[in-house]
Amino acid sequence: MKRILFFLLVVGMALSIHAQAPWGSQSKVVTDTIYSKILKAERAYTIYLPKSYEVDKTRSYPILYLLHGVMGVNTSWFTDQRAGEVADLLMASGEACEMIIVSPNAGGNPYKGDWNGYFNMPGWAYEDFFYQEFLPYIEKTYRVKADKEHRAIAGLSMGGGGTASYAQRHPDMYCAAYAISALMDIPEVGAMPSQSPDDKMAILTKSVQEHSCIKYVLNADDATKEKIRSVQWFVDCGDDDFLLDRNIEFFQAMRQAQIPLQFRVRDGGHVNEYWHSALYTCLPFVSRCFGK
Amino acid sequence: MKRILFFLLVVGMALSIHAQAPWGSQSKVVTDTIYSKILKAERAYTIYLPKSYEVDKTRSYPILYLLHGVMGVNTSWFTDQRAGEVADLLMASGEACEMIIVSPNAGGNPYKGDWNGYFNMPGWAYEDFFYQEFLPYIEKTYRVKADKEHRAIAGLSMGGGGTASYAQRHPDMYCAAYAISALMDIPEVGAMPSQSPDDKMAILTKSVQEHSCIKYVLNADDATKEKIRSVQWFVDCGDDDFLLDRNIEFFQAMRQAQIPLQFRVRDGGHVNEYWHSALYTCLPFVSRCFGK
Amino acid sequence: MKRILFFLLVVGMALSIHAQAPWGSQSKVVTDTIYSKILKAERAYTIYLPKSYEVDKTRSYPILYLLHGVMGVNTSWFTDQRAGEVADLLMASGEACEMIIVSPNAGGNPYKGDWNGYFNMPGWAYEDFFYQEFLPYIEKTYRVKADKEHRAIAGLSMGGGGTASYAQRHPDMYCAAYAISALMDIPEVGAMPSQSPDDKMAILTKSVQEHSCIKYVLNADDATKEKIRSVQWFVDCGDDDFLLDRNIEFFQAMRQAQIPLQFRVRDGGHVNEYWHSALYTCLPFVSRCFGK
Amino acid sequence: MKRILFFLLVVGMALSIHAQAPWGSQSKVVTDTIYSKILKAERAYTIYLPKSYEVDKTRSYPILYLLHGVMGVNTSWFTDQRAGEVADLLMASGEACEMIIVSPNAGGNPYKGDWNGYFNMPGWAYEDFFYQEFLPYIEKTYRVKADKEHRAIAGLSMGGGGTASYAQRHPDMYCAAYAISALMDIPEVGAMPSQSPDDKMAILTKSVQEHSCIKYVLNADDATKEKIRSVQWFVDCGDDDFLLDRNIEFFQAMRQAQIPLQFRVRDGGHVNEYWHSALYTCLPFVSRCFGK
Repeated sequence: MKRILFFLLVVGMALSIHAQAPWGSQSKVVTDTIYSKILKAERAYTIYLPKSYEVDKTRSYPILYLLHGVMGVNTSWFTDQRAGEVADLLMASGEACEMIIVSPNAGGNPYKGDWNGYFNMPGWAYEDFFYQEFLPYIEKTYRVKADKEHRAIAGLSMGGGGTASYAQRHPDMYCAAYAISALMDIPEVGAMPSQSPDDKMAILTKSVQEHSCIKYVLNADDATKEKIRSVQWFVDCGDDDFLLDRNIEFFQAMRQAQIPLQFRVRDGGHVNEYWHSALYTCLPFVSRCFGK
Repeated sequence: MKRILFFLLVVGMALSIHAQAPWGSQSKVVTDTIYSKILKAERAYTIYLPKSYEVDKTRSYPILYLLHGVMGVNTSWFTDQRAGEVADLLMASGEACEMIIVSPNAGGNPYKGDWNGYFNMPGWAYEDFFYQEFLPYIEKTYRVKADKEHRAIAGLSMGGGGTASYAQRHPDMYCAAYAISALMDIPEVGAMPSQSPDDKMAILTKSVQEHSCIKYVLNADDATKEKIRSVQWFVDCGDDDFLLDRNIEFFQAMRQAQIPLQFRVRDGGHVNEYWHSALYTCLPFVSRCFGK
Repeated sequence: MKRILFFLLVVGMALSIHAQAPWGSQSKVVTDTIYSKILKAERAYTIYLPKSYEVDKTRSYPILYLLHGVMGVNTSWFTDQRAGEVADLLMASGEACEMIIVSPNAGGNPYKGDWNGYFNMPGWAYEDFFYQEFLPYIEKTYRVKADKEHRAIAGLSMGGGGTASYAQRHPDMYCAAYAISALMDIPEVGAMPSQSPDDKMAILTKSVQEHSCIKYVLNADDATKEKIRSVQWFVDCGDDDFLLDRNIEFFQAMRQAQIPLQFRVRDGGHVNEYWHSALYTCLPFVSRCFGK
Repeated sequence: MKRILFFLLVVGMALSIHAQAPWGSQSKVVTDTIYSKILKAERAYTIYLPKSYEVDKTRSYPILYLLHGVMGVNTSWFTDQRAGEVADLLMASGEACEMIIVSPNAGGNPYKGDWNGYFNMPGWAYEDFFYQEFLPYIEKTYRVKADKEHRAIAGLSMGGGGTASYAQRHPDMYCAAYAISALMDIPEVGAMPSQSPDDKMAILTKSVQEHSCIKYVLNADDATKEKIRSVQWFVDCGDDDFLLDRNIEFFQAMRQAQIPLQFRVRDGGHVNEYWHSALYTCLPFVSRCFGK
C-alpha cells in the first residue's frame, strides 16, 4: 500500500522543488578540470549551470567568474558560501537572471609551498592561464554569451582584489565587477622580504602589491579611466573587516577619478556569513548589468 | 624570519575574529548526549554557547530550543542552516542578545523503521522525554535562566509544527514561538491507514494529525486562548512552500481567536536558504521577547 | 564675499544631487489635465519624468501606470507615498531603470456624491476613458515605448484591484502587474443594496464585485489563463491589512490556475508606510520585467 | 440605511488601525513651545507620544531626542522623514519599543540672519538652553524615564553632528547615539572668515569646527574615551553623500580609540529618503540599547 504521507512530507518537498523547476530540470553544480600548458598542471574548476541549461540546448547564457580567497579552492563558493542555493532562489524569483557561474582554482596553500594567486608571478603565470586558457576553454565548452556585455566578475578577499584588478586592467572583458571584502593592496609596511627567493607567500605578497588596485587608479591616465568607466562597479565590505580601510581608499580613489561605483559597508567581518549575504546583492547587480 | 603577510592574510582574519571576541573568547557549538530512561536510549543534542559563556562563569543566559525537520538531526541547524554563524554575527551587532541555542535529536529515518517526531506516540514518548528529561537536564547542566521569560522555541517544517504545538500546549513554558515552514497539520485526506500497526511513518502521521495546531486553536476555550496569548508568536513561510496553505489556516485561526501573531510570507520554497534566512528574523525576535 | 560654508552645507547638498545627475538634469513630477469626451470632464494626472528625459530628447522610456486608492487622487502616490523620491534613489543605484510613471485621477469622494473607480459603471465609463483616451494620449504626448514589453501597472487598495483586473482582462497590454494591499473583491455579504439608484458608493461597490479578480481567474478558460500567464505578477499585502484574506484567495486562485505569481506578506496594515515601502520592491520588479 | 461598503472601505481602514491599537488608542504627534530665559524667546518642539501614552497614565517611557538639519525645523522629522509613521509601524511589530520622541527647534534660516545650531555660540547659547531648560522641561512635563539608560539621541546632517558631539561631551546622559549623514566637522579650508562679525552663518560654521567630533575623539584622554564607551554608537551615511569622508574619518578615529561603534554605508545621498529609511535601523537600535 502506498503511503500518502510519504507524498506529503518527502515527495511533497520534491514537488515543491519541481514547482520551481516545472520542466523537471534542476540547476547543477559540477566540478571538472582543465590541463594548463602554461601552468603545466591540471587545474580544477567548479561550475553552476542554471536549471534550463539541460532543457533548452540552444540557449546560451551570461557568465559570472567568481573568485575564491587565499584559503579557498574552486568549490568554496558553493560549499562555504552556498552560491548555488542563493542562485536557485534568486533565479526562481527573477531577482537574478539565469547565468552560468564558474569558480576556478587559484592554487594551493602557500604556507605549505603551493603556488597561489590570480596574478602573473615568477613561476606561476596564473593570469596568462586565466585569459589564454581558462576563460576561452570555459566559453567554448559551455554555452556562454562570450562578450563583454554578458560577462561579469566577482570575488572575496584575495579574489576580491583579483576581481578589481582584472576589471581595471581588462575593462573590455567585463560589464560588471563586484568586489567583496577585497584585498585591494597590501601596504609596504605590512610585508617583509622573504628569507628565500622561492618563498611562495612572499612572491604572492609582492604580486598583490604590484597589482595594487588603489595605485592603479591613482596613476591611471584619462584614456584608462575612461575605459574603466565602461565597467559597472560595486564594492562591498564589512564594518568589522580588517581590510575595510583599503576598500575605503579604493572607493575614494575611484570616486576622485570620477569612475562611478556603488559602495556599501554592511554589518560584519571577514567571515563566511558576510560573503554569503553579499550574493543577495551581487547576483541581482550583475543581472542588471548584463545586456539582454 | 616572521612573515608579516601571514599576519595580514591569516592572522589578520584571526584578529578580525578576535575583534569580535575581545577577550579571546569564541562561541562554541558542541554535540553531546543524554541517556533517556523514557526512550531507553542515548539521545544526542547540539548546543551553541555564546562567546562570553566560558569567560563569565557566573552569568546565566536565555535559551532557544531549535527543532529540526523530519529529515534532519540535532546537528542540522548548525550545518545546513548555519545557526552558529548567524548567531555570532547578530550577537556581535547587538541585533540578537547572547543566548544558548540547543537542538535535540527527534529521531531517525522513519522510512527505515526509526522512530521520529516531537509528540508522544505509542512506543515513542518523545514529548515526555522532552519535558521530563531533556529540558530539565539542559537547564541544570548549562547556565540557563530557567523561566518562561527567558525560554523560546523555534523550528522548521516538522519542527515548526512541534514549535507551534509545544507553545500552544505549554504556554507557561515559553515567552516566544517562531514557526518556520511549519507542518501545522496533515489533512486527513492526505494520509492513509498503514498496512502494519508498527509502521513508524503511519504512527508519526497520526501523531501530527492528533496535534493539529489549527484544530487546537479552533477548539480552544477562552481560558486556553488567554494562556496562548501569553506567548509572542511569529509564523514565517515561503510563497513557494507546499505547506503554505496550512500556515495560512493557522494564521487565520489564531487571528480569529484574537491571539496576536506576526505573519510573513517571504520569497522561497521548502529549502535550506529559506530556513537560513529566517534566522535573521527569528533570533532578533526572540531576543526582543526575552525579559532582561 | 562668497561664503564657502554655503557651498558646504547648501550648495553641497545641491552638488550631492548633481552627483546623481551629472548632466545637470533632474527628474520632474508634473501635474496636468486631459479633457475626456467619454467622461465629459477634465481629468487630472501626475507624471514622473526621469532625469534624462529633458536631456536626451530622442530617447523613449518604459512606463508604469500607478493607480491610487479610493481616498486618493492623482498626486497621492507622489505626496503620500513619495514615489518620486524612491524612483530617484533606485534609478541612481540602478535597482530600477529609468521609466515614466503616471498616476491618473480615478475620481472624487464617493461619499460626497462624486464618481470614483477604475471600472465602467452606469454614468462613469472610466475604463473606456482609460483605454480609449488616457493611455493613448499619454503614450503619444510623452516619449513612451508604447508596447506590452515596456508597459507595467501597479496600484494600492482600490487601485491594486484595478491593477489586477486591468492586467487580467488586458493581458496583451502589460508585461507586469504589481498589486499592493489590493481590493481584489468585496464579498456579497459585505455590501447592501443602496437606498437610491444614483448612490455613487453603491455603484462603485457593485462595479468592484462585478470585476472580482478572484472570480475572474476561477472562471477563466484555458485560453484566458494562458494569456494571463503572459503577464508577470506580484501580490504584496500586509499581515495586519483588513484585505489580506482577499489577497490570499486571489493568490490561491492564481496558483490553482497555474499562473505563476510572486506573493509576499510583509509587516504592516493598510497604511502609507506599507505602500511607500512596497515601491522598493515594485520598481525593481517592473524594471526586471521590462524588455531592454 | 447603513452602507456596509462604508464599513469595508473606510471603517475597514479604521478597524485595520484599531487592530493595531486594540484599546482604541493612537499615537499622537503634538507641537508645543517652551519659553527659554537663556535664549529669550519661545522655542517650538514637536513630540511623539506612543499609543499607550493616553491609556496607561501611570507608565513612563524611554525617550529619543531627534535633531533636525540646518534647513529643518522641529516638525521636519515628522513631515519630511515621517518619523511618526515609521514609529507606529515598528512599535506595532515590536521591532521598536514604545518610546517618546521629541524634536526641538534649533533655530531659523541663518542665511536670513536667524540664529541656528546646537552648540553654544556668542549670542546663541543653545546648548545651555538644551541641557538647562529644554531637556529638564520635557522630562518633567511628559512621563519620561529620566535616566541615561532610557535616553537616546539621533539626528541628521547638522543634527547628526549635534548627536555625536552631545553624546561625546555628555556621555553620562545617553545610552545610545545614532548619527545620520552627520556634519562631523567642517574642514578649515572649507570656511572663510566672514565680512561682518555678526554673520550668523559664519558663527555657526565656527561653532561646528570648534565642536569637531573627529578632533574631539582624537584628542580625548583615556578617561574620556572610557566614558564615551558607555554610549552605544551607530554611524550611518550614504555612499553618495558629500559628508561621507567626514563620517569615515569619525569612524576611523573612534575605532582607533577603541570605542566600539556600528558603521554603515548604504545606498543614497544627502536626501529625505535616506533619512527616512535610517529610522528603520535607528528606532530598533535605540530600543535595544534602552534598559528595560
